[in-house]
Amino acid sequence: MAEPKVNEWMEKIVSLCKRRGFVFQSSEVYGGINGFWDYGPLGAELKRNVKENWWASMTRERDDVVGLEATIIMHPKIWEASGHTSTFSDPMVDCLLTRKRFRADQVAAQSGVVHHYYGAVNRGELQALLQVDPESGAMTERSPEAASHTGTVAAGATHRGPENLLEIRDIAGAGGASVLSALKVLEQLKQLKSITLEVYSVLVPAGKHPEYARKVARQYYEQRGIESPVLLGERTEEVQDSIRYNPDNGSLLTEPRPFNLMFKTYVGPVESAENVAYLRPETAQAIFVQFKNVLDVSRQKVPFGICQIGKAFRNEINPRNFTFRSREFEQMELEFFIRPNEVAETLRPTEAAEAAEGQIQSHWGWNEWHQYWVEQRLRWYESIGLTRDSLELYWQKPEELAHYARATVDILYKFPFGTQELEGIAARGNFDLSQHQKFSGKSMEYFDEEAKAKYVPHVIEPSAGVDRLILALICQAYCEEEVTDEKGKTETRVVMKFSPRIAPVKVGVFPLLKNRPELVQKARAVQDLLRPHMTVFYDEAGAIGRRYRRQDEAGTPFGVTIDFDTLGETPDLKDTVTLRDRDTMQQTRVRLDELVPLLLEKIR
Amino acid sequence: MAEPKVNEWMEKIVSLCKRRGFVFQSSEVYGGINGFWDYGPLGAELKRNVKENWWASMTRERDDVVGLEATIIMHPKIWEASGHTSTFSDPMVDCLLTRKRFRADQVAAQSGVVHHYYGAVNRGELQALLQVDPESGAMTERSPEAASHTGTVAAGATHRGPENLLEIRDIAGAGGASVLSALKVLEQLKQLKSITLEVYSVLVPAGKHPEYARKVARQYYEQRGIESPVLLGERTEEVQDSIRYNPDNGSLLTEPRPFNLMFKTYVGPVESAENVAYLRPETAQAIFVQFKNVLDVSRQKVPFGICQIGKAFRNEINPRNFTFRSREFEQMELEFFIRPNEVAETLRPTEAAEAAEGQIQSHWGWNEWHQYWVEQRLRWYESIGLTRDSLELYWQKPEELAHYARATVDILYKFPFGTQELEGIAARGNFDLSQHQKFSGKSMEYFDEEAKAKYVPHVIEPSAGVDRLILALICQAYCEEEVTDEKGKTETRVVMKFSPRIAPVKVGVFPLLKNRPELVQKARAVQDLLRPHMTVFYDEAGAIGRRYRRQDEAGTPFGVTIDFDTLGETPDLKDTVTLRDRDTMQQTRVRLDELVPLLLEKIR
Repeated sequence: MAEPKVNEWMEKIVSLCKRRGFVFQSSEVYGGINGFWDYGPLGAELKRNVKENWWASMTRERDDVVGLEATIIMHPKIWEASGHTSTFSDPMVDCLLTRKRFRADQVAAQSGVVHHYYGAVNRGELQALLQVDPESGAMTERSPEAASHTGTVAAGATHRGPENLLEIRDIAGAGGASVLSALKVLEQLKQLKSITLEVYSVLVPAGKHPEYARKVARQYYEQRGIESPVLLGERTEEVQDSIRYNPDNGSLLTEPRPFNLMFKTYVGPVESAENVAYLRPETAQAIFVQFKNVLDVSRQKVPFGICQIGKAFRNEINPRNFTFRSREFEQMELEFFIRPNEVAETLRPTEAAEAAEGQIQSHWGWNEWHQYWVEQRLRWYESIGLTRDSLELYWQKPEELAHYARATVDILYKFPFGTQELEGIAARGNFDLSQHQKFSGKSMEYFDEEAKAKYVPHVIEPSAGVDRLILALICQAYCEEEVTDEKGKTETRVVMKFSPRIAPVKVGVFPLLKNRPELVQKARAVQDLLRPHMTVFYDEAGAIGRRYRRQDEAGTPFGVTIDFDTLGETPDLKDTVTLRDRDTMQQTRVRLDELVPLLLEKIR
Repeated sequence: MAEPKVNEWMEKIVSLCKRRGFVFQSSEVYGGINGFWDYGPLGAELKRNVKENWWASMTRERDDVVGLEATIIMHPKIWEASGHTSTFSDPMVDCLLTRKRFRADQVAAQSGVVHHYYGAVNRGELQALLQVDPESGAMTERSPEAASHTGTVAAGATHRGPENLLEIRDIAGAGGASVLSALKVLEQLKQLKSITLEVYSVLVPAGKHPEYARKVARQYYEQRGIESPVLLGERTEEVQDSIRYNPDNGSLLTEPRPFNLMFKTYVGPVESAENVAYLRPETAQAIFVQFKNVLDVSRQKVPFGICQIGKAFRNEINPRNFTFRSREFEQMELEFFIRPNEVAETLRPTEAAEAAEGQIQSHWGWNEWHQYWVEQRLRWYESIGLTRDSLELYWQKPEELAHYARATVDILYKFPFGTQELEGIAARGNFDLSQHQKFSGKSMEYFDEEAKAKYVPHVIEPSAGVDRLILALICQAYCEEEVTDEKGKTETRVVMKFSPRIAPVKVGVFPLLKNRPELVQKARAVQDLLRPHMTVFYDEAGAIGRRYRRQDEAGTPFGVTIDFDTLGETPDLKDTVTLRDRDTMQQTRVRLDELVPLLLEKIR
């Protein structure tokens, strides 16, 4: 089968997610809410399995990592210490006309003729000044040609543009008045109440009438309190690939300003500055601020880690790529505290003992620990079904690193929409603990009995996004295969090839026929046999082939069918069932008393 | 041992929670944040186990409930439909002086003399009006006796109090001026610029000098722009048990106003009314709005349920009782959709078949389903260690029920600070689905093939708080026992008697001695044997008795000790270990190859 195009492929995946209940748009019946996604029954199970697997791999299967579950809303000073209050922002520009906001680096470049204006004045006042008959209506109906009568005025100190000229087309055009002395006009204009000298510009794309710019500019000045505005000056300029104008309407945008990505709220009944709090933009900081508490209770010694799974929130300007970049998401983060290099060095054995590969060593510095965790994390992704060739490592370049980071490796997955980050593994020095020590006034120092040294521990941070991992697992699992059914008919089989470890449902249980009570009863007994150990889906509706297909789409790795042989029609086969493998579609006959251990081995 | 007092008991529990890492104050190094709590390593595991157990009991062990995981921030119209925007509020009063806010029903009652004032006027203006020498200073130093010179003025239409008199003590007192004609004063006063006729009152508790009231009142009027205020009128009144005054300073409070308990934020870059969103105050509504999506994908038929575990947020005015009432908390909610009674009725068997006890019946109406779920939930609490005698059922009285609820049963736990709600089980009719149908314009109707009827399903809602349940489990587990050690010394043993099902750590593994490599090596092998199946804590530090005590405090139900017999010192006992039971402290000898199944049976 020809490889479908990227967008088609994502469309199929998005469609399956909705159809089978992996992912729904949040609040869908109300038209949705941009950047928020819900997990349906299958998605919720898949996500639980992945999180449970990560948690077990970090805590239960290791001696040197313990868990934490902290709140989403924390003391706001934490975000001052971490730098999020001042620097966790995107550069934003606003349309000066509509106030619509854009990310500065996402404005589409445009070319055309820009019309600059130096301000505007109320028509009535101007008419009075120029002694023009207010009944004439000439200004309203003024043709572009009439507007070309131009008054030229030397600008005073009030105007800061590079040009020292004001072309007052509209004044000249207004009543066809003779050109006034430049200084006299300016002085008189300054006396007017309804005047503004705010600069404004409009880009007119090629092919569009220049009058469009004047219409937009008048709207702009009207919004600023100048009724019936007459534009002051008009100067045109050709621009190429400019990102300073709103692509929707040509209006000038503001200069880029930082927009903080943290969601803000107020704790307590009064909405005042001292009650501001934020939804955490990452789970990591809670680990740092509870470092000492955890150290005190957990009988751990450096090197050791604290891990956490939980929701985090970022007010993304442009959520995109399905669930990949959303505003509410979940993280799985480990902060692994290590010795500073100079302390670790002192523990280096005098005669270099041949270290067992991968074995943790006391004298490891940040570099060895960093490499260790990159390898651990890759192995974990493999263990849940992301093959090494679906992943890529990206070593951040020195100029890309955060100022406190010594090295950061991103683990990327080859999504249909591009190769994108699943996890970052950063060697962060001791920046975070030191910052919290400074901002809280509480010591974050650790006394290392083995190395006889006191220090603020350094940290290696493997930080993964749960939702993007779920999306990667769904993309990786999605397969279309051409298969031939028992009647020789060729059809396309959609199958989700999840690793049995994380599959939402582990086994489907099917009585061969629905209308034979003895089959149904036996199938229910098999369901009860399996249920204490794994998630089972019982299905008796429709042809057995259709039931298999439904479980293929759900990613259920095994199917157990109860037939007449199970009941003893062929005596040798009594109390055996067929076990179907989702990927190979092979069926084998298995004794019921061997079924639980056999399946447990396959799903662990 | 004598039963300690309630507060002592809670203090011991809070202290253990911190000492052993069950619960920490959120952001503790920054002084904490009121109403937010973190779970340390043991607490996080305990909470995970409880949630996992609930989830399994709802989804894996049943055919008729599926899971959902929805976002915390949802479309704001959901909270209009549910009624939370308009009615999810507490009555609040503000101190008119300090703006401090109180829950109206939590203001402490006070008695004393209330001083009422009708307004204030600027001293300088008043002096000018009364032609008093501004240098005299008499007003500032005025004694209460001097203030008793009273000018009586018939009040004009500007004053709405029940009295038609203004006692202008301060005017009279100001310069000892002769009494002016009443009407003249009033008319002249009204001409002044710096005057306010806002009524204000201060309660002076018995024993406090009346001058205190004047000082507070002057501060109040100063804040309202009257510099150097002279109080207009003073009238006193004795009050008993009034809740209209701030207990901190005696100032009058505002009338009660509703304060919405939802945390508000803005989604997207602009803080405008159309971008307002809320942190969900309950997880239930997400289930209702995704009802149709889940129905479409899950092959379920009414009656069936959708369950969810997740965080919810309420901006409580007065968080209290440790983690019991906090601002960020987690819920476990089930919405179980059922037939309306009149539809269920049609399925009643003509000859009343004897129903198996507890067996679900097609003809059940809301009353049977409600009773069924109350019983199910009680059984679940028992299964994780809350005995029936620690629980109480409270049937809400008709006047306590929400207008849409037909019946609500609260399951209460006997906390040391009082018997309080763990879970509410409500029969909610079809209020929620109907509201969302109305507000979204999308049909929430269901076609019931079996009953041949179309309807908006009704619902039974068992809704539990995770954090308060964790607190109940901790309170229930906490025990102090007097025990005699091997040397005959009596000591107090603190033991957390968690059910093995939910205990954070299932088994401690101890080599008898730390300095015998063969014991340590064997103990590590036992740890590796158990680790794939359960959470293990390895401890080699200190005397074995101390290690047992540490695990007693952590609530670890089993301890495995590796001694010389394990290594074969007594040949018959080779590859056996001692298994210690936390609660009985009995030790039995168990073969290593029987250890895993034995423990698995005990912890399931």
